[in-house]
Amino acid sequence: METTTLGFVDLIRSQLDAVEVAMRAQSGLHHPSLDDAVEQLLASGGKRIRPAAVLLVGELFDARGKELVTLAAAIEMLHTATLVHDDLIDGSVLRRGAPTLNSRWSTGATVLTGDYIFARAAFLASRTGSLPVMEAFARTLMTIVNGEISQLSHGPLLPDRAEYLRRIYAKTASLFELASEGGAMLSTQDAERVQTLKAFGYSLGIAFQMVDDVLDFVGDPRDVGKPVGSDLRHGLVTLPAIYFANENPGVREDLAEACAGRLEGPRLEAAIAAIAASDAVRSCMEEARTFIAEARDALSSFPSGPAKSALLDLAAYVVERSV
Amino acid sequence: METTTLGFVDLIRSQLDAVEVAMRAQSGLHHPSLDDAVEQLLASGGKRIRPAAVLLVGELFDARGKELVTLAAAIEMLHTATLVHDDLIDGSVLRRGAPTLNSRWSTGATVLTGDYIFARAAFLASRTGSLPVMEAFARTLMTIVNGEISQLSHGPLLPDRAEYLRRIYAKTASLFELASEGGAMLSTQDAERVQTLKAFGYSLGIAFQMVDDVLDFVGDPRDVGKPVGSDLRHGLVTLPAIYFANENPGVREDLAEACAGRLEGPRLEAAIAAIAASDAVRSCMEEARTFIAEARDALSSFPSGPAKSALLDLAAYVVERSV
Repeated sequence: METTTLGFVDLIRSQLDAVEVAMRAQSGLHHPSLDDAVEQLLASGGKRIRPAAVLLVGELFDARGKELVTLAAAIEMLHTATLVHDDLIDGSVLRRGAPTLNSRWSTGATVLTGDYIFARAAFLASRTGSLPVMEAFARTLMTIVNGEISQLSHGPLLPDRAEYLRRIYAKTASLFELASEGGAMLSTQDAERVQTLKAFGYSLGIAFQMVDDVLDFVGDPRDVGKPVGSDLRHGLVTLPAIYFANENPGVREDLAEACAGRLEGPRLEAAIAAIAASDAVRSCMEEARTFIAEARDALSSFPSGPAKSALLDLAAYVVERSV
Repeated sequence: METTTLGFVDLIRSQLDAVEVAMRAQSGLHHPSLDDAVEQLLASGGKRIRPAAVLLVGELFDARGKELVTLAAAIEMLHTATLVHDDLIDGSVLRRGAPTLNSRWSTGATVLTGDYIFARAAFLASRTGSLPVMEAFARTLMTIVNGEISQLSHGPLLPDRAEYLRRIYAKTASLFELASEGGAMLSTQDAERVQTLKAFGYSLGIAFQMVDDVLDFVGDPRDVGKPVGSDLRHGLVTLPAIYFANENPGVREDLAEACAGRLEGPRLEAAIAAIAASDAVRSCMEEARTFIAEARDALSSFPSGPAKSALLDLAAYVVERSV
């Protein structure tokens, strides 16, 4: 796997390597080809931002126990499992430039492989040796799945900002929250500090998803790995579209059609191009930066040092990245 | 829900009612129709043998804490979640006489509902307050899913008895084992007794599945809720077929065809009828009774009393039932 060159990982490089090992330990799927497919999924696996958050929160408390590595692996596995089932449900054929499991395997094999990765994630979570962490893990799993279920039946109603925030909390921020809260739970007995780190993870996760949703409109498709406007093409109305519709009420009808999966052809392309070129994109980035400022504020009570600097770098990366 | 009239539940009737409540507490699916579907699934839900095993093992130690109720609910929810994904994978349209989720909902809705029930099960398991229980729970989840995955690609090879035992351990006995082991873990510090109860659950679960596989051939389809020979019709070769093939090598080729999903029409019907009428059925029941005898033996070191009597009744029921 490619060595990452992001600054905030320098402090935790050896622990991140241990996370890779933990994700693969006892993988023991009784099906060599699916085992290979899972390995490929893990190897192509993104930037490990969630594990980095767990480990850097640990560093903040000078904690470097193997429980932190185990939690980081559990969270990344949970993230991976949700991707497997999401790709199946959305019928996606590519993920990070590689063929998805569902594009190569039956529905049954894909469902079960996702289930197995969930099971491995739960097993790793149980190995943190912390019941509060385990409980938070299970709660987060419920939040994520429930969020996906509530999106199944949203129909042709345009979400508003509040609804959008609820969705991206369930989809993304809940797991960032678990990463920082869980990392803190394993590192300190100070309940107030745990809450502070939980708030840090929440703001970081919300900003992360907002930037993702902006990049879907204005990122380089070669970096992002999917066509421009991919969300809207799949009926998903995100913050740039919501802000654009607020300023341009005439587009609401088209976006409602998009929500219902009925907007196609030139009208769809026109809507995507208009949103991408609009001020809505700038407003969304501003809002993401506001959440990052809140994340930074959450760290203000911690003394300066390499761990805090790395977490601030991580927060800066979330809004500065191009992919 | 219908009140059960099985003798072994008298001792634990109020706890079993509490299990029903626990399975429904905070169900809070963000989708009323799927919530109704889950409720229907739970309400049609079998005989609660796994929860009964948890609670009766608790009684054996005079333990009646709410953690036992929570574990019993977690195990029944885990069982329910696996049924949801199994029915999807097998394309089954009926379960216990009621339409399956996948027969009425999209693949996406069915996958996510199963995931949500898994998540609820994991949450309940975490609420037992016992890390060893939580770890055993996660291990069992891995065992069950891995077992299903290994069956995906068995091809036209006839399983032998050893392979059959491995399969039904993963599919059924592992969860009975968890029920008794987990019930013991929550009730005693005596590691040897925990192991003894684990062995009890293993034997009980193996016998339970063997009887299920016999009833698939000789049970009344109105009681069993599916056509005679349903397993073989779905390419699943179970112990009665394995024993029949051992005595009648001429049928091996047909059964191998059945394994590959290619046996149909009169040859399939003839194979089912021949197995149902054969001594193989009697041999399987004898073997199930041997496992039940082992389960009873595992209890021999416990003093007589209502809890032990009820567990012995439960064991007897497993081989005497007609459904």
